[in-house]
Amino acid sequence: MGKFAEFTRFRQELNDKILQKGNLGIKRFFALDEQAYHPGAIDAKTKELLGLVASLVLRCDDCVSYHLIQCKEQGASSAELFETFHIALIVGGSIVIPHLRRAVDFLEELEEKSKC
Amino acid sequence: MGKFAEFTRFRQELNDKILQKGNLGIKRFFALDEQAYHPGAIDAKTKELLGLVASLVLRCDDCVSYHLIQCKEQGASSAELFETFHIALIVGGSIVIPHLRRAVDFLEELEEKSKC
Amino acid sequence: MGKFAEFTRFRQELNDKILQKGNLGIKRFFALDEQAYHPGAIDAKTKELLGLVASLVLRCDDCVSYHLIQCKEQGASSAELFETFHIALIVGGSIVIPHLRRAVDFLEELEEKSKC
Amino acid sequence: MGKFAEFTRFRQELNDKILQKGNLGIKRFFALDEQAYHPGAIDAKTKELLGLVASLVLRCDDCVSYHLIQCKEQGASSAELFETFHIALIVGGSIVIPHLRRAVDFLEELEEKSKC
Amino acid sequence: MGKFAEFTRFRQELNDKILQKGNLGIKRFFALDEQAYHPGAIDAKTKELLGLVASLVLRCDDCVSYHLIQCKEQGASSAELFETFHIALIVGGSIVIPHLRRAVDFLEELEEKSKC
Amino acid sequence: MGKFAEFTRFRQELNDKILQKGNLGIKRFFALDEQAYHPGAIDAKTKELLGLVASLVLRCDDCVSYHLIQCKEQGASSAELFETFHIALIVGGSIVIPHLRRAVDFLEELEEKSKC
Repeated sequence: MGKFAEFTRFRQELNDKILQKGNLGIKRFFALDEQAYHPGAIDAKTKELLGLVASLVLRCDDCVSYHLIQCKEQGASSAELFETFHIALIVGGSIVIPHLRRAVDFLEELEEKSKC
Repeated sequence: MGKFAEFTRFRQELNDKILQKGNLGIKRFFALDEQAYHPGAIDAKTKELLGLVASLVLRCDDCVSYHLIQCKEQGASSAELFETFHIALIVGGSIVIPHLRRAVDFLEELEEKSKC
Repeated sequence: MGKFAEFTRFRQELNDKILQKGNLGIKRFFALDEQAYHPGAIDAKTKELLGLVASLVLRCDDCVSYHLIQCKEQGASSAELFETFHIALIVGGSIVIPHLRRAVDFLEELEEKSKC
Repeated sequence: MGKFAEFTRFRQELNDKILQKGNLGIKRFFALDEQAYHPGAIDAKTKELLGLVASLVLRCDDCVSYHLIQCKEQGASSAELFETFHIALIVGGSIVIPHLRRAVDFLEELEEKSKC
Repeated sequence: MGKFAEFTRFRQELNDKILQKGNLGIKRFFALDEQAYHPGAIDAKTKELLGLVASLVLRCDDCVSYHLIQCKEQGASSAELFETFHIALIVGGSIVIPHLRRAVDFLEELEEKSKC
Repeated sequence: MGKFAEFTRFRQELNDKILQKGNLGIKRFFALDEQAYHPGAIDAKTKELLGLVASLVLRCDDCVSYHLIQCKEQGASSAELFETFHIALIVGGSIVIPHLRRAVDFLEELEEKSKC
């Protein structure tokens, strides 16, 4: 199973478990989180790039993987993704580099999958 | 070997190696760290919940796993753990979610183990 | 004007401005944030101690000031606050110390005010 | 002197001092930092929104002030700024709120200044 | 009163208050913290440079001010301090810059004071 | 394949991919990053210890592994590495411990490899 499939499976399975446990505050947070990326004054693709850069500077690999999937779905180009990586690198410094390596590795798998 | 067994084995083996190397300052820090959770004005269970929420907002999976084990040993209920997760999520934001997923996955293994 | 009065005034004034601007997602987050500390399986005082330790390890002075006010209102004792400080210091390290100094300074003003 | 004037004066004066000291690596970093926000596949306004969200989740008030100035210069609307604030709040959690208050306070001064 | 005098006064006054409150764990942490910078296999000046770079990447202004004072006392040259700033900037990224500005401002006051 | 070989292989492969994609800003950052550790007023070994302590307090395992390799190449002794670990632990607190465990585990593999 590739990184994409494993990431998606675990994410879905555990999100379901978290929501089943029934803490209302956690459920509401999950709903708010999803709504924040709906298009408004800022379009959906740009919002995903905002989520991506925030995830990179905070160095959260799973958040980066998630926003890379969304960015590709919203039509972000490779050049747009790399300019976003560039800003994350300048703002967050060299400690972002290991996360950038994993992001590029994940992105490559995403791009191969989309060719099939 | 399950996540619990592997976590516990690696933790114990490497803690032993760190303490054998003989840097006195590191040894003293390890002792202080352990003492901080002894019951005092605040009881042991609540101190473990404090350790858990701090570990979650700082996004340290191993620290979360460790404090989940201690919370269960001190008798924390599922509802108490989820309300602590909720506070961590509100304070620390959506970047806490991947750590929450791994926490819930680890907790599930802990609960199954305790049924045997 | 003391630190307490200035903190409270600025906090209230700007929260009002943020809520007036009318972004629904931000409003909902503010409501969720407030609800997370309502008593449930965990009582209100303990929830405020959880908010305090999270704020200290994340090194947010304003969040620390806010939770100190709430902890005092919920009846937290000086010993409970200092044991919470202790855990924050062990988990977060010496970079927490400057925030601890400001916390103790703020707490002293709170305690003098409550004597009047 | 208002917050904008004081921020701009101190920033300029100290950047000059840092660059005069002549460490070539630091000078090159400052140049790279500036170039990262030049328009490319992503336009200048969006790059400033990316810088703003990264600064908010990393909780750097001066970085937030700087990118707010640039966002306004590049024509970002109030709704775009608040949607960016919203994403920062969801990703970074309630510890972002004190920085959001200071951002809104600074933004208000910027907007009044631009009316003159 | 200059920045150095105000920093030193507040630091001393509040450290005294924290130690008087009598939580033994906090007292022991303060002692451990001080011992970590005693010369050993690594000399005192280098240990202070290690404390300085750690404080800069964690973006703690008071910790930076403290280690700058200690670095100067241990004879660190301006070039050594700026090379340490450079590494902090590369590792931690542009969000370190506002702290670097305040560090250089504080350092300038330290150097003027030492000329008297 | 041991941890060292796997770390080195993935790091090299993905760095190459990142540099091939041709974003000039990212390339320049990688060059700046490498230059920051060249000897100057501070010797190469000390600069690597600075990189190591910064990586530990920022809790980046890959950065720690990289600087451990460089520290060993520059002749850092075990006592110097453990005193650096000690400072990282005091500055960054108990959340550094899991990273310290992985650092000591990686270091052990490095030392066995160098005996062959």
